[in-house]
Amino acid sequence: MDKLIEQLTKRLFVELEASGRHVHLSKDAAMYLFGHPLTPAKPLSQPGQFAAQERVCLRGPKGSMERVAVLGPERSDCQVELSRTDCVALGIDAPLRDSGDVANTPGITVSNGDRSLDLPQGVIVAKRHIHMTPEDASARGLKDGQQVQLRSLTERPLTFEEVTVRVSPKYQTYAHLDYDEANACGFRKGDMGMIL
Amino acid sequence: MDKLIEQLTKRLFVELEASGRHVHLSKDAAMYLFGHPLTPAKPLSQPGQFAAQERVCLRGPKGSMERVAVLGPERSDCQVELSRTDCVALGIDAPLRDSGDVANTPGITVSNGDRSLDLPQGVIVAKRHIHMTPEDASARGLKDGQQVQLRSLTERPLTFEEVTVRVSPKYQTYAHLDYDEANACGFRKGDMGMIL
Repeated sequence: MDKLIEQLTKRLFVELEASGRHVHLSKDAAMYLFGHPLTPAKPLSQPGQFAAQERVCLRGPKGSMERVAVLGPERSDCQVELSRTDCVALGIDAPLRDSGDVANTPGITVSNGDRSLDLPQGVIVAKRHIHMTPEDASARGLKDGQQVQLRSLTERPLTFEEVTVRVSPKYQTYAHLDYDEANACGFRKGDMGMIL
Repeated sequence: MDKLIEQLTKRLFVELEASGRHVHLSKDAAMYLFGHPLTPAKPLSQPGQFAAQERVCLRGPKGSMERVAVLGPERSDCQVELSRTDCVALGIDAPLRDSGDVANTPGITVSNGDRSLDLPQGVIVAKRHIHMTPEDASARGLKDGQQVQLRSLTERPLTFEEVTVRVSPKYQTYAHLDYDEANACGFRKGDMGMIL
């Protein structure tokens, strides 16, 4: 009985996570800014991903933000993921994109102390998405790239439309929102979403 | 034909508006802070309501915000409407409430120059809602107090669940979101919502 409930729950619900603003750096960028590769400080929900000890300052035309999280490991391209609230504060009109899709996006200045890097592009507002293991996807009849509706079971319930499901054996199953979305639905850590 | 389309559009759609953080003051509070009643600077979408020339500073345990909008006319109770993002910045855990429902809410410090007022209560995160004229409500078969789902026709579409419809001949028909909600759906001025 407990197992049935667990399976049903797993089929219907997905744990929500809110991603704050963060930066992905290339190996070269990390070496330039810190003089060494990124140092893992805290593992993230996605296996192998980590929050680094290193932090950076972001500067746009209208403002700057100190101690912004850097996520590792290093990637081939630098990418800066902001909420729209952050975009307004920094004065950068970043487009809504899937992670990794940085062609023709605005640039930004990333710095650590007196080491400063003018990225010509890479600033995006990340599209909400669900990371899913192949097992969880198959239990739900979902395929990689499929769009679903996700209802937040939160204080201010919302249904997120057009949420992309990404399936990989490298993932753990979590829905990722940014802080505008998390705040809009009254998200608290541990809250679940239901795939409609 | 044009009239039919207009009527259909009116029946299905509602214009969205985003409300930034703002303060409502009692007559006494306005007199204390400014030495005179509020001065209308800009009319709002709801008839008789205005943004005042006067602005205030808000101070909470973790931060402060300068030049915060004051909306008039004066009300019987002071009320401060924040987004959750603002709440985090100020260090105030305000509850989600309908406007006017300020019993047992946290307080805040409101000031103008060296005139400072410690409000013992009044800070809320305003529940999203739709203001509606009796004509528009009747055309949609809706009643005052009814809860509806509102789908945003925006860049990042969302369906807002549990949106309260408020009907009054004093209203114009507009759906009101806060900036977390507006940013979460990628709202741009003029965007519409559809009542489901």
